[in-house]
Amino acid sequence: MKKADLLEWLKEGNVTIPSVLLTQYKEMRLNEQELALILHVFYFSEKGNEFPTPTELAARMTISAFECTDLLRSLIQRGFISIMDGNSTEGIRYEKYSLEPLWEKLFDQFLLKRQQEKELVEQKEET
Amino acid sequence: MKKADLLEWLKEGNVTIPSVLLTQYKEMRLNEQELALILHVFYFSEKGNEFPTPTELAARMTISAFECTDLLRSLIQRGFISIMDGNSTEGIRYEKYSLEPLWEKLFDQFLLKRQQEKELVEQKEET
Amino acid sequence: MKKADLLEWLKEGNVTIPSVLLTQYKEMRLNEQELALILHVFYFSEKGNEFPTPTELAARMTISAFECTDLLRSLIQRGFISIMDGNSTEGIRYEKYSLEPLWEKLFDQFLLKRQQEKELVEQKEET
Amino acid sequence: MKKADLLEWLKEGNVTIPSVLLTQYKEMRLNEQELALILHVFYFSEKGNEFPTPTELAARMTISAFECTDLLRSLIQRGFISIMDGNSTEGIRYEKYSLEPLWEKLFDQFLLKRQQEKELVEQKEET
Repeated sequence: MKKADLLEWLKEGNVTIPSVLLTQYKEMRLNEQELALILHVFYFSEKGNEFPTPTELAARMTISAFECTDLLRSLIQRGFISIMDGNSTEGIRYEKYSLEPLWEKLFDQFLLKRQQEKELVEQKEET
Repeated sequence: MKKADLLEWLKEGNVTIPSVLLTQYKEMRLNEQELALILHVFYFSEKGNEFPTPTELAARMTISAFECTDLLRSLIQRGFISIMDGNSTEGIRYEKYSLEPLWEKLFDQFLLKRQQEKELVEQKEET
Repeated sequence: MKKADLLEWLKEGNVTIPSVLLTQYKEMRLNEQELALILHVFYFSEKGNEFPTPTELAARMTISAFECTDLLRSLIQRGFISIMDGNSTEGIRYEKYSLEPLWEKLFDQFLLKRQQEKELVEQKEET
Repeated sequence: MKKADLLEWLKEGNVTIPSVLLTQYKEMRLNEQELALILHVFYFSEKGNEFPTPTELAARMTISAFECTDLLRSLIQRGFISIMDGNSTEGIRYEKYSLEPLWEKLFDQFLLKRQQEKELVEQKEET
């Protein structure tokens, strides 16, 4: 192992996600494959590819591009991911995935859970 | 939505993982469920629980505690997770999960991939 | 360099802060020394030490423990850091630093900046 | 406060740095202003601006553009930052800052500290 290898590793960097996504995805009716797909979409976007193809996504997953297309469609239909229009600086229109609906749902879920915990505490105090 | 909610959200914080884990888990023969289980073990440990039970882990996943036990056993047998002995400050012995074997494998995989990419470049230059 | 060194490095982990703190601390009338002190308080807390002494903080900074005490006092007076009471599981009372006031101010600053940007866009559109 | 504000906040994201930079910058003879400047260079680069001007950097700091130029020059002379040549996809040459020298120094510092700690333990065991 050489120092150059370590520097390359450092350059790859990290992915940082809100902890709540990890602790609450199940409550939001997402399974582990869907969580992983979301992480891939998020990471591709961070690296500048805002509309990765199912082939690109599936290349990093243990599912086929066809299955990936189905998963993406399902996530869009259930309101976790949306497709947005953008205009490049050269005026060319393009499409991109947005995870805004996911963050919004996640925050709602977070508020709901806090509310439930409060009510639980109040019930205990009453008895 | 109130400001107190936002502060609570901020307190929950983030999970940060090396990008290479996300881009290379497939090459290391891990599937999405195993990736998620690893993320849970990692996050529990960050929050001070170094030996979460299958029941605690499964509570955040879409699998049963039994399936979680099987997954853990498989990850240990395949050398991704190990169980280590620790001694608390009060001298009590305890067990904990260690992800060291995973990080080591991940770095090996990272070096292997770099080597393959170099060879590919050299082959192209020769022709 | 050995693999064990890399594993130790990975174990040290990362510090993750909201980007807005980095881009807006100046607008909040914090200087670089105060930013660094806040980062140290934040990181000590993440590692389980919620009330580091000026000596502990100054050991990582290019200022003396006395100067550190002054900086802390100033940050508390200006409402960036507060001191909170806590009760340990054994019922022992203790004090700890809280960065909640900072996050609240930061979010206010973020909202203010967004508002100013909107007004700027509207002014341009009117002319 | 509206949900849209929170989404904007989430979009701003986080900055993630190796903890060792925070705990060891003093030992590497960096002060808090230099640490902050390094964080700004790092963050600009993450956002796609690999060669921010002293004016852009100073706009986020409590120093003037002139002082920023001096600080940058000093960091380059002391081997923390280097200037590298790049070629854009359109074949245009450009310059960019590289933090590779910093990461390399940081890792050396990390190894040195580990070595010192080991020797300290051995000395204690001998007596």
